Amino acid sequence: MADTSALNALIQGLRRLPGVGVKSASRMAFHLLQHDREGAQMLAQALMQAAGNVKHCALCHTFTEADICDTCQDESRDASKLCVVENPADQSAVERTAAYKGLYFVLMGKISPLDGVGPKDIGLQKLIDRASNGLVQEVILATNFTAEGEATAHVISVALKARGLQVTRLARGVPVGSELEYVDLGTIAHAFVDRR
Amino acid sequence: MADTSALNALIQGLRRLPGVGVKSASRMAFHLLQHDREGAQMLAQALMQAAGNVKHCALCHTFTEADICDTCQDESRDASKLCVVENPADQSAVERTAAYKGLYFVLMGKISPLDGVGPKDIGLQKLIDRASNGLVQEVILATNFTAEGEATAHVISVALKARGLQVTRLARGVPVGSELEYVDLGTIAHAFVDRR
Repeated sequence: MADTSALNALIQGLRRLPGVGVKSASRMAFHLLQHDREGAQMLAQALMQAAGNVKHCALCHTFTEADICDTCQDESRDASKLCVVENPADQSAVERTAAYKGLYFVLMGKISPLDGVGPKDIGLQKLIDRASNGLVQEVILATNFTAEGEATAHVISVALKARGLQVTRLARGVPVGSELEYVDLGTIAHAFVDRR
Repeated sequence: MADTSALNALIQGLRRLPGVGVKSASRMAFHLLQHDREGAQMLAQALMQAAGNVKHCALCHTFTEADICDTCQDESRDASKLCVVENPADQSAVERTAAYKGLYFVLMGKISPLDGVGPKDIGLQKLIDRASNGLVQEVILATNFTAEGEATAHVISVALKARGLQVTRLARGVPVGSELEYVDLGTIAHAFVDRR
């Protein structure tokens, strides 16, 4: 494999993908070159297109090719509710429930002091401006229930409540379909506290 | 994520990589768009370059950008020995041992009837022609010690021996540094049979 600088460049390129080490990258490169050159060209096109065209929605900060994303432009949505999620995958999960008809704000990250990510990096000021537009009456925090997600929710909650906005958090409790015996104790304790 | 056709195309493109499902592909796409657009462009370039320029060495069938790869062009190598491996990663592993100074033939696959891969698909005829050039005195089979690798070695061995070539197989036995207690029984049995 000595003189294949194109192959080596491809392996190095694939290693830029998260979770891909040198072994996986080699396997991917061999697969593409041996069995799927069309796929390689398709992927190259898609990468160029996406890297060039995808930007952030001016309102909700999610990925979009337009200035304002489709969700924010949708006039049938309830503009009095704003759901804060960490990333577009979380937004997509909320959308698939069909239980929420309001608008979104996508942080594109979470506060993580260990990684040097503070309130500025998740666009807290942009969220405050967005939530203070006079239409939003309730901000629903749907960040993940991890240590970083909880910290992020806490920081946002403090900042928004100081400006007189109503802030709620997704309910914590026992997942649908689960048996208490197998649910972790922290979840059961929370479900007791938040009982209704 | 509704109006981001470029994002969706990128996720579909990433799914062409082996071992990447829709969740991993989304995570990769978000990572590239959010944190590493330069990496996305680098990868796109590398994909185009590799898909366009990398071909197979006319002699050993490995990936190369030239007609004949560096290893085959290297005159200091022992042209009387030909080592048959399944893919360039295996070739690279053999090279790193620095225990072999002969030439290679890279099958770029293995016989696998379940996947519809037969002797023709691994270039058996090309290997026979290569091994019958009058210079090669020994063909060393270094296919993997899996069911498919063993079947591949068997088929090649039969075909080459019928043409009067000397065919050897990498030794099977107890790996360096291992304790018998923890070695699987098939390996110990083989090590007994092949004792020297």
